[in-house]
Amino acid sequence: MADSSDARPSAGAALSAAALARLATLLPASSLSVDADALQRHGQDETESLRFPPAAVAWPASVAQVAAVMRWASAERLPVTPQGARTGLSGGALPVRGGLALSLERLDRIRDLNVADMTVETEAGVVTGQLQEAVAQHGLYYPPDPASRESCLIGGNIAEDSAGPHSCKYGTTRRFVLGLEAVLASGDVVHTGSANRKDVTGYNLTQLLVGSEGTLAVITAATLRLIRQPAATLVLGFGFDSLERAARAVSEVFASGVEPAACELMEARAIELLARSHDLPSELQGAEAFLLLELDGETSEQLLAAAARLGEVFAPNEPLVAQDARAQRRLWKIRSKIGEAVKGHSSYKEVDAVVPRSALAALVRAARRAATAAGLESVCYGHAGDGNLHINLLRGELDQSTWEESRDRAETELISSVLELGGAVSGEHGIGWTQRRHLTRALTPATLDLMRRVKQAFDPLGILNPDKIFP
Amino acid sequence: MADSSDARPSAGAALSAAALARLATLLPASSLSVDADALQRHGQDETESLRFPPAAVAWPASVAQVAAVMRWASAERLPVTPQGARTGLSGGALPVRGGLALSLERLDRIRDLNVADMTVETEAGVVTGQLQEAVAQHGLYYPPDPASRESCLIGGNIAEDSAGPHSCKYGTTRRFVLGLEAVLASGDVVHTGSANRKDVTGYNLTQLLVGSEGTLAVITAATLRLIRQPAATLVLGFGFDSLERAARAVSEVFASGVEPAACELMEARAIELLARSHDLPSELQGAEAFLLLELDGETSEQLLAAAARLGEVFAPNEPLVAQDARAQRRLWKIRSKIGEAVKGHSSYKEVDAVVPRSALAALVRAARRAATAAGLESVCYGHAGDGNLHINLLRGELDQSTWEESRDRAETELISSVLELGGAVSGEHGIGWTQRRHLTRALTPATLDLMRRVKQAFDPLGILNPDKIFP
Repeated sequence: MADSSDARPSAGAALSAAALARLATLLPASSLSVDADALQRHGQDETESLRFPPAAVAWPASVAQVAAVMRWASAERLPVTPQGARTGLSGGALPVRGGLALSLERLDRIRDLNVADMTVETEAGVVTGQLQEAVAQHGLYYPPDPASRESCLIGGNIAEDSAGPHSCKYGTTRRFVLGLEAVLASGDVVHTGSANRKDVTGYNLTQLLVGSEGTLAVITAATLRLIRQPAATLVLGFGFDSLERAARAVSEVFASGVEPAACELMEARAIELLARSHDLPSELQGAEAFLLLELDGETSEQLLAAAARLGEVFAPNEPLVAQDARAQRRLWKIRSKIGEAVKGHSSYKEVDAVVPRSALAALVRAARRAATAAGLESVCYGHAGDGNLHINLLRGELDQSTWEESRDRAETELISSVLELGGAVSGEHGIGWTQRRHLTRALTPATLDLMRRVKQAFDPLGILNPDKIFP
Repeated sequence: MADSSDARPSAGAALSAAALARLATLLPASSLSVDADALQRHGQDETESLRFPPAAVAWPASVAQVAAVMRWASAERLPVTPQGARTGLSGGALPVRGGLALSLERLDRIRDLNVADMTVETEAGVVTGQLQEAVAQHGLYYPPDPASRESCLIGGNIAEDSAGPHSCKYGTTRRFVLGLEAVLASGDVVHTGSANRKDVTGYNLTQLLVGSEGTLAVITAATLRLIRQPAATLVLGFGFDSLERAARAVSEVFASGVEPAACELMEARAIELLARSHDLPSELQGAEAFLLLELDGETSEQLLAAAARLGEVFAPNEPLVAQDARAQRRLWKIRSKIGEAVKGHSSYKEVDAVVPRSALAALVRAARRAATAAGLESVCYGHAGDGNLHINLLRGELDQSTWEESRDRAETELISSVLELGGAVSGEHGIGWTQRRHLTRALTPATLDLMRRVKQAFDPLGILNPDKIFP
């Protein structure tokens, strides 16, 4: 159940029959639709239950076709919203001003997998999980693993700088992007960066485009850096009888010299909600917090030695240790099913807060305080190793207007605490449509103004994913 | 001996006595100079022997003073060239249009070292090596290690996205920059990013500013991510009887699953030049190429196991193995003294080419071919693990005009080969002043035009480090 209070009809740009006919001449048959079903489908993503149907949907299948669409949109002065698999959680892919939804899903070719140089050139429409499988067949590893990796597209990941549990050790999507092919609002095709591991030829537009949420250019392809698959992995679970202790444990892990590949935290309420639908290991019963660690490296012996070191750090807590793939999957399932369990329980509003690691316990306390003050419950879980928690504010049984008021109050209060803790509004979900109102608090006027000028430099007509990011 | 052929008097902006007097009111005493000595010193960096004295030098000691200087410069429409320690190798810090040299060396405070969160906030004028030592005292590690690290400033490293041998495993400077404080041409102070490990609050201006060579903003401070110091290191040296074999060995190292912290290659000519002034291990006598690897990790046993694996890959080549710090320094010295040895031998022109790793041998061959065709000698050495070689074209005994003509011909030819191999004009030295002419070949007009619009968005008057990067 997601929050439907913001669902509203699009007040967006209509598309004249003549403009549509001109667009149709630029694309092959079956590349354009105004069917109600298609408009409905491309009018939503995974953000709450927001709905903003576009006036039309286009599915170009090549960079030349994307360029033609953007030239058309520039000439017609019509808004274009680039879309991947629409799995985003901040409404970045919603056509909030109508116009054209530009789906990248047909640019779905892995152009070149270079095993020797450990790079892959992929089009934007390749599913992230499929890309990971394709490179894994050659012993290579593309670490960024958003929860939606079986359905999300790599282009969307790049546009949002997506991350996941393994960003703890390996970094977010941006750390793997060496170069981009992208289409500007004008229809000009630009190539940024290269397939080289170092490249300081002019401004790093690659790293500017990563995370720009489809507002600066339409990313059509990327060259990604790969690493070797680790030979061994080990998954550990620790229950803690206090949240403070678990949060402190996160810092202790890193201070011990062990660098986990993933370090995920779940607080008691998340575990309780999960227990309603899943059989959990007995060690989790009654735990106030659960920490899941994945270690990876060259040999199992090395990982077991690291695990022993952590065992000492957390004594007398005994870890759950998962050595084989099946046991590891079982432990990971505890973490990966929490989102669903929370969402199945109640309407919710999610805050994707990130803070310095040492402020994790303070963040959870701030979430509880903000929620309680507004008459709500909060549930925290997420990527503790990066200081990034997904804080769900639960609607419970509140009526619509009370919920809206309480939710907004709690969120405003929580973001204030996050910023006081030195944190940021979003760690990985982006600003998109739903987090814009916090930006004036998070950034100084001079910084925000500079971002607006950058937007202007890329998209002077303001047709590319309008009304996103900026308040 | 460096090439002095491009030395020329500055045709730069003069500074009226009135403008200078206005600037003097904005800064404390001893923060401004027009002494011939100072102008001479701040008119050069480590690039060949280029000299472009500014009209004045300012040494602000706070971000407020930097902001005041930039407001003044905007009002006066005068060029400002930000400078660190002037150790750059592409002329990025040269005041090619005169005006004001803005030295950041007095912003030399480490503002906050956060051991628990493994971050450090440092001002731009801190010497990179001193920053490394300060964090090492807490078991922390800042890996980027340009050759000039004992004198270069962290702000300059950020402006150039500097790198060094350890970028092989850890990445270049940009991978460690979480946030920046910077002053725009207008004098506005902006804050980009944060101290968080993930942050997708609006555009990533941090990563755009890294590597922008002082043309977009004056970087005054940065928050850097740190990692734990590896507990163990091992240094290996391998001599090869053919360059092809050594270049292939680089790819084999990575294919073996061993990820070296550093992977440096020297070709025979570099070793020969070094042998004139240094006692080299007998294993290097007659080698056509020398590969230096550093491994790091948690235990020596683990590293020795990895070394044994590499020994098999390179059999029958026997490695030189350095386990203790002294032996490691001795092997590293072979690599670190090459630059000096080459420079002491002849005037030279350096090309900082980077190619995909598998094209390393082709790159060295291309360098030899381009040099020979122009009647010059080439010497290659550098960061092979990143595909980044410093190619020195040697002047030898040529007269000035022959040298200039030969050098330009060889460089043009070499850059053509680099681009054909999928490489880039510069891996870590930047475009600055000396590499600008290659940019129109390396970038498409649409991409170059986009970079110009970004410059315009940051610096509409064009006063910040003018005539750099863009041809």
